[in-house]
Amino acid sequence: MSELVTVAVDAMGGDNAPGEIVRGAVDAVNDDKRVKVFLCGQEDKIRAALQGLSYDPERIEIVHCSEVIETAEPPVMAVRRKKDSSIVKAMYMVKEGQCDALVSAGSTGAVLVGGQVIVGRIKGVERPPLAPLIPTLNGPALLLDCGANVDARSSQLVQFAKMGSIYMEKVVGIKSPRVGIVNIGAEEEKGNALVKETFPLLKATPEINFIGSVEARDLPYGVADVMVCEAFTGNVILKMYEGVAGALVSRMKEEIMNGGIAAKLGGALIKPTLKSTMKSFSTEAHGGAPLLGLNGLVVKTHGSSKAISIRNSILQCIQFKEERINDFIRESIASTES
Amino acid sequence: MSELVTVAVDAMGGDNAPGEIVRGAVDAVNDDKRVKVFLCGQEDKIRAALQGLSYDPERIEIVHCSEVIETAEPPVMAVRRKKDSSIVKAMYMVKEGQCDALVSAGSTGAVLVGGQVIVGRIKGVERPPLAPLIPTLNGPALLLDCGANVDARSSQLVQFAKMGSIYMEKVVGIKSPRVGIVNIGAEEEKGNALVKETFPLLKATPEINFIGSVEARDLPYGVADVMVCEAFTGNVILKMYEGVAGALVSRMKEEIMNGGIAAKLGGALIKPTLKSTMKSFSTEAHGGAPLLGLNGLVVKTHGSSKAISIRNSILQCIQFKEERINDFIRESIASTES
Repeated sequence: MSELVTVAVDAMGGDNAPGEIVRGAVDAVNDDKRVKVFLCGQEDKIRAALQGLSYDPERIEIVHCSEVIETAEPPVMAVRRKKDSSIVKAMYMVKEGQCDALVSAGSTGAVLVGGQVIVGRIKGVERPPLAPLIPTLNGPALLLDCGANVDARSSQLVQFAKMGSIYMEKVVGIKSPRVGIVNIGAEEEKGNALVKETFPLLKATPEINFIGSVEARDLPYGVADVMVCEAFTGNVILKMYEGVAGALVSRMKEEIMNGGIAAKLGGALIKPTLKSTMKSFSTEAHGGAPLLGLNGLVVKTHGSSKAISIRNSILQCIQFKEERINDFIRESIASTES
Repeated sequence: MSELVTVAVDAMGGDNAPGEIVRGAVDAVNDDKRVKVFLCGQEDKIRAALQGLSYDPERIEIVHCSEVIETAEPPVMAVRRKKDSSIVKAMYMVKEGQCDALVSAGSTGAVLVGGQVIVGRIKGVERPPLAPLIPTLNGPALLLDCGANVDARSSQLVQFAKMGSIYMEKVVGIKSPRVGIVNIGAEEEKGNALVKETFPLLKATPEINFIGSVEARDLPYGVADVMVCEAFTGNVILKMYEGVAGALVSRMKEEIMNGGIAAKLGGALIKPTLKSTMKSFSTEAHGGAPLLGLNGLVVKTHGSSKAISIRNSILQCIQFKEERINDFIRESIASTES
């Protein structure tokens, strides 16, 4: 039993809770025998969602929580007050070692706050970055930080680069991942104060494969495997992906509608291609984003997550544990501290 | 003669100089009798490019400059040393009142530096923002700052909002343009230190129509007419437009190539639609970006500008002068100073 990877799942978080969350958990348990899930949330609702699904009852357990943290709630207050919420209880299960990992599609703020305050940082880690995998023409790349840590310091960005490299190498399987710092020009002297201060520090970090500045224009083409920036920039990049792709497709559909018969026919024929292109460019394509550098694994999935994304996020925890990512992070961060 | 709008054009700047630049200038002069162009650059090359074109010789004049500033040159040094370059000479023509405006497709750095150092700022303007019009589903919107002024202060962002509002109202013709501050969440308490400091200042600026925070995801849909941010963020947004759209179309083409006969046929039929969609989403669609807040008008067009973009940028100068944009900016900035 002790070899199982145990994952606390916030069954109440996200737009499709608990139905899709519970289904995703059941799929994960059915697809991989190494995982056990603790479904945290309102017991009656979870039981109703489990109705009719078949799974190994030894590997799905319900943890009743009477409270729910809403997306709009101020996160610090919510985490402090709602001790019996699914997020907070799941966080304590990770902190106390009952679970290896936590997956939530709930309030990003509450997950970030709970991760730092309850689960806690690995010694030496200044700030835990939220690190989603972003689609590029060259395969997925890690963009960090996309969390709530705005106004970061250069030493924090260096830690992001190290943790991101470990993740891409051990979890995604990219040897010697290329690390770039997001900048507004290719030259070393370009950038804001933070980038200018961070650039030489990254250059002087032997354990990463630093390739220099990367421009936003080139990110979707996959010029780097690990893209380092502070969270304001990361957030803008992440959301521009969504916004530009969405608006472009809207405009195209509109032009097809207003076009001639050729455009309409072409539009109909191209529909499956367009759909698969959009899917391959969705920032949700690769499941949840880990919050790196915590004493345990916390994975945040998109608020609109469906079962498949929850399943993938749960299965991702297996690799994270088996590849001992946190041991590597501990070692890498400690080496700087000394 | 004195009623003509006089525009100094950097005939040597950009990837397509002097051919496309000269052609664009001729087109502008032929299309609007109110404009006179001074083509600054190497006389023999300009003469060769003018060969075979017909135009009113009273309204095209060549100003010989022996030097050229290359894109890769460090801008401050280049502007200081190359006194006889097309950019520097054109800047002096604006400064000394010989010309109302300047259009350049050359080195962005040199244009920004030259604008500040040679043409000079309007009294009270802290920093002149580079303000391109960005395509949205809702028509063009102004994104500022996209220049080199990284690490801006909140008072500067307030000035950007005011100058951007004047431009959108007077030049683009949008009444009471909606001003948003680029942020990572909709709530007032969200954001980095700069945004948090700027938000209440914008709220307390009666002459603008401040609508609060706007998220990057929503910008391409046209949620604001004036989008205020500091230049690092502006640059990332501008380049994500280009990068995401370009990569998306690449991927789509690839999927069409690898698809079945239906996808290939659909792809062929949809080609003109796709082309016009991409064109309507190009950040170059609306010609050059003004550098606002200078004693004169400096317009920077894309390095890859063709004749049409040069023509549009020159014609844009007419409206800028006739609508007395700089008088309004002077008045608006002075009102804060007092």
